[in-house]
Amino acid sequence: MNKPDIPPHYFIQRKAKKLIKEGRDIILLSVGDPDINTDKRIIDAMYKAALDGHTHYGNIRGIPELRESIADTLNNELNISITSENIILLPGSKTSIFLLTTALLNKDSKIIVMTPTWGVYLYLLDRFHYKYKKLKLKFENNWRPSQEDIEFLKKEDFDSIIIINPSNPTGKVLPKEDIEAVTDIAREKDAYIFADEIYYNLIYDDKPFYSFLNTGYEKAVGIYSFSKAYAMTGFRIGWIVANQEIINQLSKVMTLLFTNVPDFIQYAALKALSLKDIVEKNREIFKNRTRMMESGLMQLGFKFHRVEGAFYIFIKTPENYRDSFQFANDLLDKAGVAVAPGTAFGDYPNYFRVVTSVSEDKIDRAINRISSYLNK
Amino acid sequence: MNKPDIPPHYFIQRKAKKLIKEGRDIILLSVGDPDINTDKRIIDAMYKAALDGHTHYGNIRGIPELRESIADTLNNELNISITSENIILLPGSKTSIFLLTTALLNKDSKIIVMTPTWGVYLYLLDRFHYKYKKLKLKFENNWRPSQEDIEFLKKEDFDSIIIINPSNPTGKVLPKEDIEAVTDIAREKDAYIFADEIYYNLIYDDKPFYSFLNTGYEKAVGIYSFSKAYAMTGFRIGWIVANQEIINQLSKVMTLLFTNVPDFIQYAALKALSLKDIVEKNREIFKNRTRMMESGLMQLGFKFHRVEGAFYIFIKTPENYRDSFQFANDLLDKAGVAVAPGTAFGDYPNYFRVVTSVSEDKIDRAINRISSYLNK
Repeated sequence: MNKPDIPPHYFIQRKAKKLIKEGRDIILLSVGDPDINTDKRIIDAMYKAALDGHTHYGNIRGIPELRESIADTLNNELNISITSENIILLPGSKTSIFLLTTALLNKDSKIIVMTPTWGVYLYLLDRFHYKYKKLKLKFENNWRPSQEDIEFLKKEDFDSIIIINPSNPTGKVLPKEDIEAVTDIAREKDAYIFADEIYYNLIYDDKPFYSFLNTGYEKAVGIYSFSKAYAMTGFRIGWIVANQEIINQLSKVMTLLFTNVPDFIQYAALKALSLKDIVEKNREIFKNRTRMMESGLMQLGFKFHRVEGAFYIFIKTPENYRDSFQFANDLLDKAGVAVAPGTAFGDYPNYFRVVTSVSEDKIDRAINRISSYLNK
Repeated sequence: MNKPDIPPHYFIQRKAKKLIKEGRDIILLSVGDPDINTDKRIIDAMYKAALDGHTHYGNIRGIPELRESIADTLNNELNISITSENIILLPGSKTSIFLLTTALLNKDSKIIVMTPTWGVYLYLLDRFHYKYKKLKLKFENNWRPSQEDIEFLKKEDFDSIIIINPSNPTGKVLPKEDIEAVTDIAREKDAYIFADEIYYNLIYDDKPFYSFLNTGYEKAVGIYSFSKAYAMTGFRIGWIVANQEIINQLSKVMTLLFTNVPDFIQYAALKALSLKDIVEKNREIFKNRTRMMESGLMQLGFKFHRVEGAFYIFIKTPENYRDSFQFANDLLDKAGVAVAPGTAFGDYPNYFRVVTSVSEDKIDRAINRISSYLNK
C-alpha cells in the first residue's frame, strides 16, 4: 500500500473511526484523550458561572481571577514569579504555535523544531508556509540533544525554536542541563523559545520538573493546558506564559480571531485549579497505565525508552516491517488496534506511538491483540 | 487630539472601560452584546451534556445532531436545501473570514469588501497581509450598491467578495435584486461570496430575507452565529454553510488550530434551535429598542436611515465636528456615552455607530446625555 496523501496519522485515525462506525471493535491507542470523565465539581462550577450571567463577551486575555490563580499555581509548582499580566488564555493549547508565529514571526523567520514532536505543529508550519528545520533527536541518545545536536544549534541561524517537554511522543523529560544548554544558545541568538510544557504536571519520577521558564530567559514562552492533567480535553482551554510585550502582541491576534475563551469555561478551569487532588489522582492513574503498557510491550520484545512524563510511548517498529505506516495499517486491519505512525512526529518512519491514557482493560486487550498478531 | 495608533473603535472602547473601572458611569453603545441573559433552558442543556460525558475531543465539523438541526432550521427559514455535510461549526463567527481566506485564497488573491463593514474583517485582512479593495456604499444610496458600484464590480478582477447583510453597522437589509446582481458578477468571475448573514433572523419588517444561499451559486458561503438572536455571545459558537468541497478545506484548517467547538456548547446550541420562542422574543425586544433609539436620535436632529435588521444605527456626525473620532472622544469624556467612530467600519470618518441592543433605560439615559451635551 502506498503512502496516503493526507498525514499518515490522520489516515489511520479516520480509517479507525470508519471501522468503528461499521461495527468493528477497534482499540484506539492513537489519540491522547484520557479515558476519564471531567470531575463533577468542575462541571458544576461551569454551570453556576453560566447561570450567574457569565455568558457575554469577555476579556480577550481571560478573566483576571483565573489568570491570577494560574500565576499562583505556576509560581508555586515551578518556583517562578509571574503575574496575571504574563498570561493569556487560549481556546486550547493547539492554538498556541499559530498565535505565537503569527504575532511574533514573519514568513522569513527561521524556525527550529525539535523532533520527534506533536505532528500538528509541523503541519501548521507547512500550511502557513513557514521555513523551518528539524533538530532530529535520536533514540540512541535517549531522546536528548546530543553534543552534535548542540553544535548544530550553535551554528544555525534561527529566530525561534519549538520544543515539547515532557515530550509527546517520547515521554522524555529533558534534564536541567539540556534546558539550560538550549536556552544559552537561544539567548545568544535572541531567539524565542516556544516551550510546550502541557504535561509538566504529569511526571512519574520524583525529580522536580525544570521548566524553560526557570531559566529566566525573557524570550522563553511556556504553553500549558487544562486538557490532560484535569481530563478537560473537550473544554478547549489552555494558556501561554510570556513576558508582557509578547502577551500584548498575542492579544492583538486573539481579538481578530476568537474574542475569548467562554467565561463559564474559565470559571470551570478556575475550579479545577483549586482541586489539587484531581491532578494527583490522574497522575497516578496515568502512571499506572503507562507502566502497564510498558510492561506488556516489553514482554512482546518492543524497543523503547521508559516513559518519564506524559502518556505516550514512542516505539521502534518491528524489523520485518518496511515502515511504521505499513505496520500501523496492518495492525489496524488485522488486530483492530490503532496506533500513530512515526512520520506523524517528524522523520521517524521506523517508530510508532501508542497512547497510554486508555483504560487498563483496553491496554490488556490491546497487548493481547498485538501479541496474537505478531505471533501469527 | 490626534488619531490613536490603535483602531479608533478599540481606543474608545478601552478608554470607556478604563473610565468605568475608575468609577465613572459610562453607557456603552459601542459593543453589540445584548443586554439579555441566556435562556436557562440552554444553560441546562449544556450542563446535562457535560454531565453526560460530552467533555472529550469531538468531531472537527461539529456534532452531527447539531449540524442536522441547523440544516433543517435554515432549509425551513430560508427555503433552501442543504444537509449537515454543508456545515462546519466555528468557535464564534469571528473566525469565519480567517478560516475562509486561509483555506480558499492566497496572498495574491484579490478581495473586495463591501463597506461599511464590521471592522474586525478589515483589521484581519490587514494583519494577514491580504490585498483588498473596498466597495464603498453611500448614505445617499440608502447603503445599497448603486449602478456605479455595480459597474465598478464588473470591471474589477476579484476572487472573493465579503458582504455583511443584514448590515453591521448600517442596519440595511439588501433586497433580492441587489443580492442577485452581485451574485451574477461573482459567478461570471468564478469568485467566492463570503456572506456574513449572522443577523438574518433579526429583521424587523415582514419582508422575507433573501440570502446569498438562495441564489444557488455554488461559491456562495453563508456565515451565521448563535450569539445575537439567542443572546449567546459568550458561548463562542457560529457556523459556516458552503458546498462540501469548501467545508472539507475549512476542516483541514480547523483541525490545525482549534480541534472543535466544545461538544457541550454544541448541545446548548442544539437546545437553542429548538426554542423558537427565544428568537421571536429577542427580535421583538431588539426591534423595540431600535425604534426607541431611532426616535430619540431623530428628535435630536441626527441623520440616518431607518434600521431594517440587526441592532445598529450608522449616523452622520454633527456638522460642527471635524470627524467622528473627535465626536466619539468628546461624547465619552463629556457625556459618558461610548459610540464607535465610523472609521472602524471603513472610510467613514463622518459617521458613527450606536448599538441599539442595550436596555430601554440605558437608551433613555443615553439620549438625555447626548441631548444635554449637544445643547451645552
